[in-house]
Amino acid sequence: MKVEYINAFVLSIISVFRTMLGTELVRGDPFVKDGFQPRHDISGIIGLSGNAKGTIVLSLDRDSALKATEALLGEAPHQIDADVVDAVGELANMIAGGAKAKLEQFQLSVSLPSVITGKGHCIEFPSRAKPICIPFDCTWGSVDVEVGLVELPQPAAATAT
Amino acid sequence: MKVEYINAFVLSIISVFRTMLGTELVRGDPFVKDGFQPRHDISGIIGLSGNAKGTIVLSLDRDSALKATEALLGEAPHQIDADVVDAVGELANMIAGGAKAKLEQFQLSVSLPSVITGKGHCIEFPSRAKPICIPFDCTWGSVDVEVGLVELPQPAAATAT
Repeated sequence: MKVEYINAFVLSIISVFRTMLGTELVRGDPFVKDGFQPRHDISGIIGLSGNAKGTIVLSLDRDSALKATEALLGEAPHQIDADVVDAVGELANMIAGGAKAKLEQFQLSVSLPSVITGKGHCIEFPSRAKPICIPFDCTWGSVDVEVGLVELPQPAAATAT
Repeated sequence: MKVEYINAFVLSIISVFRTMLGTELVRGDPFVKDGFQPRHDISGIIGLSGNAKGTIVLSLDRDSALKATEALLGEAPHQIDADVVDAVGELANMIAGGAKAKLEQFQLSVSLPSVITGKGHCIEFPSRAKPICIPFDCTWGSVDVEVGLVELPQPAAATAT
């Protein structure tokens, strides 16, 4: 994945957290993840396809997920429940939507989000698509975004893959 | 998700396991999953987008995942490692590819797969998109496929979402 594409995802998550949740994210250093590292408590995954194919993973620790849900839906959940799943899926969806608008050249469309729960879950990508992980901090705790994006050989392949 | 679309995914997984892995799958009864049920040991997730948006989850128990990897790559892994991740991602990719060919009306394209590991992980969908789970048995153990597919209001929305 080309480094210049990362910025689209960084700007999108910062903007979504600022405008939708009223929270400022502080970005850490991006890194390439080295396999089977457990993620935070809940992760939203969304697929991207078009003239590139990719996946975005938004991962939050428990406190950040509960607070983000309260900020988005107006009610404070006490545990990771269906509302938190909906909120995390919707945040992943908004981040993907913001990034795809900045990556017009790929004519990306987004899939339905899915949301992973379970302490100690790991999310891996195929070895041909090394993702880049971008960690963030906010007053609620830790949030990170992981992005893998593979350009297809030619634009005409968009509907053929 | 309309019941008539399930068949495309059922036929695709049976075909992929038969032709790529040399194994016959026996289908159980499809059901609508009722939240936060742990999945098998490893799951491949792939997004679909086009004139519908969706997600496919292929979930395998440990033995099935190891045997499927051996059948696909020719070498027997001893644990869930990067080869098993690649194999499960590739199987999810092939199942999605087979199903999209049978659902031409949606002009679906597939995202990059991601693969979830970690005993007790749960995979949830947003509440507006109740997925259907189709369990299968084979000589190696249990495999299941879960599919959520939401039709978009109008075909013209394909590149706008």
